[in-house]
Amino acid sequence: MPLVVRNIPRADSGVIDALAGYGVATVHEAQGRIGLLAAYMRPIYQPAAIAGSAVTCSVAPGDNWTIHVAVEQCKAGDILVVAPTSPCEDGYFGDLLATSLKARGVRGLIIDAGVRDVAVLTEMGFPVWSKAIYAQGTVKETLGDVNLPMVCANALINPGDVIVADDDGVCVVRRADAAKVAEAAAKREANEGDKRARFEAGELGLDIYGMRERLAERGLKYVDEPPKG
Amino acid sequence: MPLVVRNIPRADSGVIDALAGYGVATVHEAQGRIGLLAAYMRPIYQPAAIAGSAVTCSVAPGDNWTIHVAVEQCKAGDILVVAPTSPCEDGYFGDLLATSLKARGVRGLIIDAGVRDVAVLTEMGFPVWSKAIYAQGTVKETLGDVNLPMVCANALINPGDVIVADDDGVCVVRRADAAKVAEAAAKREANEGDKRARFEAGELGLDIYGMRERLAERGLKYVDEPPKG
Amino acid sequence: MPLVVRNIPRADSGVIDALAGYGVATVHEAQGRIGLLAAYMRPIYQPAAIAGSAVTCSVAPGDNWTIHVAVEQCKAGDILVVAPTSPCEDGYFGDLLATSLKARGVRGLIIDAGVRDVAVLTEMGFPVWSKAIYAQGTVKETLGDVNLPMVCANALINPGDVIVADDDGVCVVRRADAAKVAEAAAKREANEGDKRARFEAGELGLDIYGMRERLAERGLKYVDEPPKG
Amino acid sequence: MPLVVRNIPRADSGVIDALAGYGVATVHEAQGRIGLLAAYMRPIYQPAAIAGSAVTCSVAPGDNWTIHVAVEQCKAGDILVVAPTSPCEDGYFGDLLATSLKARGVRGLIIDAGVRDVAVLTEMGFPVWSKAIYAQGTVKETLGDVNLPMVCANALINPGDVIVADDDGVCVVRRADAAKVAEAAAKREANEGDKRARFEAGELGLDIYGMRERLAERGLKYVDEPPKG
Amino acid sequence: MPLVVRNIPRADSGVIDALAGYGVATVHEAQGRIGLLAAYMRPIYQPAAIAGSAVTCSVAPGDNWTIHVAVEQCKAGDILVVAPTSPCEDGYFGDLLATSLKARGVRGLIIDAGVRDVAVLTEMGFPVWSKAIYAQGTVKETLGDVNLPMVCANALINPGDVIVADDDGVCVVRRADAAKVAEAAAKREANEGDKRARFEAGELGLDIYGMRERLAERGLKYVDEPPKG
Amino acid sequence: MPLVVRNIPRADSGVIDALAGYGVATVHEAQGRIGLLAAYMRPIYQPAAIAGSAVTCSVAPGDNWTIHVAVEQCKAGDILVVAPTSPCEDGYFGDLLATSLKARGVRGLIIDAGVRDVAVLTEMGFPVWSKAIYAQGTVKETLGDVNLPMVCANALINPGDVIVADDDGVCVVRRADAAKVAEAAAKREANEGDKRARFEAGELGLDIYGMRERLAERGLKYVDEPPKG
Repeated sequence: MPLVVRNIPRADSGVIDALAGYGVATVHEAQGRIGLLAAYMRPIYQPAAIAGSAVTCSVAPGDNWTIHVAVEQCKAGDILVVAPTSPCEDGYFGDLLATSLKARGVRGLIIDAGVRDVAVLTEMGFPVWSKAIYAQGTVKETLGDVNLPMVCANALINPGDVIVADDDGVCVVRRADAAKVAEAAAKREANEGDKRARFEAGELGLDIYGMRERLAERGLKYVDEPPKG
Repeated sequence: MPLVVRNIPRADSGVIDALAGYGVATVHEAQGRIGLLAAYMRPIYQPAAIAGSAVTCSVAPGDNWTIHVAVEQCKAGDILVVAPTSPCEDGYFGDLLATSLKARGVRGLIIDAGVRDVAVLTEMGFPVWSKAIYAQGTVKETLGDVNLPMVCANALINPGDVIVADDDGVCVVRRADAAKVAEAAAKREANEGDKRARFEAGELGLDIYGMRERLAERGLKYVDEPPKG
Repeated sequence: MPLVVRNIPRADSGVIDALAGYGVATVHEAQGRIGLLAAYMRPIYQPAAIAGSAVTCSVAPGDNWTIHVAVEQCKAGDILVVAPTSPCEDGYFGDLLATSLKARGVRGLIIDAGVRDVAVLTEMGFPVWSKAIYAQGTVKETLGDVNLPMVCANALINPGDVIVADDDGVCVVRRADAAKVAEAAAKREANEGDKRARFEAGELGLDIYGMRERLAERGLKYVDEPPKG
Repeated sequence: MPLVVRNIPRADSGVIDALAGYGVATVHEAQGRIGLLAAYMRPIYQPAAIAGSAVTCSVAPGDNWTIHVAVEQCKAGDILVVAPTSPCEDGYFGDLLATSLKARGVRGLIIDAGVRDVAVLTEMGFPVWSKAIYAQGTVKETLGDVNLPMVCANALINPGDVIVADDDGVCVVRRADAAKVAEAAAKREANEGDKRARFEAGELGLDIYGMRERLAERGLKYVDEPPKG
Repeated sequence: MPLVVRNIPRADSGVIDALAGYGVATVHEAQGRIGLLAAYMRPIYQPAAIAGSAVTCSVAPGDNWTIHVAVEQCKAGDILVVAPTSPCEDGYFGDLLATSLKARGVRGLIIDAGVRDVAVLTEMGFPVWSKAIYAQGTVKETLGDVNLPMVCANALINPGDVIVADDDGVCVVRRADAAKVAEAAAKREANEGDKRARFEAGELGLDIYGMRERLAERGLKYVDEPPKG
Repeated sequence: MPLVVRNIPRADSGVIDALAGYGVATVHEAQGRIGLLAAYMRPIYQPAAIAGSAVTCSVAPGDNWTIHVAVEQCKAGDILVVAPTSPCEDGYFGDLLATSLKARGVRGLIIDAGVRDVAVLTEMGFPVWSKAIYAQGTVKETLGDVNLPMVCANALINPGDVIVADDDGVCVVRRADAAKVAEAAAKREANEGDKRARFEAGELGLDIYGMRERLAERGLKYVDEPPKG
């Protein structure tokens, strides 16, 4: 029986905004290299970079009815996350739904399926990460669930988890971990700033990271000319 | 034996231009959700939006000879549609052929294969929807047909059918249906304009489309908290 | 045992720059339609066009350690070429490594795997051709080789070969052939300039290339109306 | 509005059986190298080889309702051909539908989507060529058409066309061409029999087909040792 | 920090064996059309059909070290489920690991990656469902986790969940739901038996399922001849 | 200009036969985890296991003319290796060419493209590893080279290199390395035999390989219950 969960916990908005600033690669590293959605999830325009609270929505293949149900559960600062119950690249979402979400303050859409009206979405500045761009329309016959845990593009998403998305892809951060991940990301970024200056000055990673000794231990051999044969 | 058909019927140019204005998603819906080419057909640059009469051209794998034959059959307002007789991603088409087509007033190229010189094509403003971008050259040894019905990217294209292409992909409209599809698209668009305003004002699709009763009939259940376990 | 070759021969820098100017499609044709890397190797931003000497680097799946070793072997005018020893789309390379390469005068990266921090790389103007964009981090546990011959995206690359890359993809030119390929490309381009003017003036390829007689020999038949049935 | 066409013309059953005997590769050659469905259409077990009259059936993504409608239109000697209106790999068809088709004398199924219960189908000896094997169930909410022309796996299929399918894939023969294609296939096979004996005796294709002169004309050069460098 | 959980709950062995008997398609339907792993998960030989308790194991790309750790946690009746932390098709598993698992009474392997030694595994009768068959070896440098919840081939797997796998693919059943799913599957199968007899006798699904009235409501129209034009 | 090299060196036949016996996975490991062709290269029937000397043959897309030229260069014990100059899945090879090769004592075919007549090839016992099975016919208009070094399925193949192919895929061994690789494979296999017996007896890889200490060093932690939260 299809279910909609009305109340979901959300992470602190300051923490969410901080995660948006660090970006997907840094956040993913900061939480131990976990949480990435599949590499085929690409933004419809670049650059784009957002973070927000996940409202989850499962849909039947070729059927976007549940998205209309999910919109009502979205609040300002949320990101709608949609996954079909079997793989489908139809265009579940277009400019009218984007207008509706934008009117509610929703920051973007993550959809493991197709999207359409991308020229209008680009003009509107409503960012979408999707598996495909495809004009194929959908029906409204079969219902999925809203705000239940769900796998999207090979990652588990719980309602209220923090989604971070930018030109590198999409990452999920468990709500309970968001603050400590933001802290770890801040440290990582500070550290990277130092390194960036040293790299700009021509220092090598081999020296900055002190790799030379370990390379020798692993038997790395330098020769002046390529071996014969 | 390879064949070129010289005279093909074309749709009314006013109707064609109207279809260009409505765009792929709307035209596809207006004609009953049919006519889309495969989702892998993508524009080489965005935004791009055209409509025109199909001149069809089948080519051997790795052989672009027939394209030269097809160019002569193209008139102002046409779109050249090319499909290989077996799947191939070679670069059948580049800036010289584009120059030739542009000189004839051709509006763009749809090719279920590869294209090259895309930087120049972009500068020229000659739009192409293709399966791939690939520099691989082709030979001129084997002939295909021009202006016979043909399957391209999983859609049947008859010569003279109307092709509509934009950032959402490519759609074909049967020539005989073009006027009535344009009318249906006009109605759809007018209707969407009304809805857009309501969505912008914060109304929900659930209410605009009157979905709540049918959702209840289907057993959709709202709960405040996620179910245990 | 992992190996680094320090001294590699490089082609003449004037020849390399000339090849950059002709671009991938022309260079590939000029050397007899060989040398292209797989069509899935795409630039992270467009337009982008470079040529340079290949420094080759093989890496373990999910492990970018050897890239740090390879950076030290890169000189101004080089292009770093990276291939995993089994297919992998992880994000081996990001903005810090790009900063390091840029500081050394390296012109770009070719990687048969994933890359991340693409928004920053785009801002920096550091061009990359890759199989994927993916934030997935890598480890530093297993070593590959630097400056040994290597297959990358289905093409053989020797250290010191010339890499030409633009919006059409990536092509390799053997170092010893670079000068003569540049000459052949120059002739081809001159020839294309003439043709372009004729195409712009409305002449047909059928006439410019003198194809009509051979088409007739191959049995191409022109009819005014489509055949029945 | 969904439509079922009750009466479709069928080819002569003797001709159909003859085509089954020649197999896909020969039939495809005999009709001028046309008519193949996409290479991803594979049999669920091997060997399998059938021919029959196409009953066509379009289905919505994730919805097999129309297949039940189509079954009633199938007669002994038919092959059911199913294509989704947008790409879908769900398991539209299983052992109960196969039992139903088998009871009517239907020879097999061609489906540009998924199938399930393949262990039972294999035991039953009911052959299927499909895009995928996938247990995913489907709904019964949206109708397609039965016995209208349809594109399936990149090939146009008219109701009553002859389908030939074996371990090499699937081929369609227009109903009106079936007799003449069968004749051409018979000639081709006779011719192949002669050649097979000559190949078995050690003769070379170069001599059997008289290729040596044309190879020399094309500049093929034989050398005893590989060229230097 | 990598973690191994030693004690995991398992479902009742009678229930597990019952689920094996019903097979993937039936179990998936019986639990409401959920739980399937991606369609690319295919058995290395057919027929094969097992069910067992999941021992979960995440691995680094190209690194099978953690599998050795996981083996120790496997008991008779278990199924080892392995997922890489980023997509990888390397051959993580071969005949020696299969020998080790078989010695412990493990029933099979589910791996969202590659496997090798498939000829030996087939002879041994040790069933594997994998994404790829690939001889590529792996290293032992980086650790994953054993018996933590994990996404495998787009499905969430908890340690102790019941895995059902056969020629149609792989399905997961939550441990707590196993008994009630087995009951629902039993009912479904009984029901299917009745239907099978009716289908064999030539009755139509349209009548068995009472579909005719609803088809008419949906506007399905029967015509004797195809519409013109 | 297309070239055929007549004399190619071949490895010792005893060494080649020994490599066949060890199989792809072992040979690949024995030579340092190199030499595998792409995982999409699959046998048309299983089990199949051969080794032989590579006769290399490049072909134009959709054009199998050069294969006829290559056949003449094949001797007993050889394996024909074919790669298209751009990706193509056409059926380049069927039962007549197989008959011709078999008559010459050729052991099999490796082709980075399509093959057809697979039912007959299976009956004949002529093994083929290919990218696709596809009935699509090819032309004879454009020539490639025979017995020049060539990249096939992402691996460099020199004429005379040893090809080892079995159900796990295809591996190339440099001719000059064949004897020493065979020796290393022999050692590896002997070693595996010992281990197999220990695994059968229930010993764990953790103990056989002495991994426990290093696991502890890497921080692997065992807990009895899953962590909370």
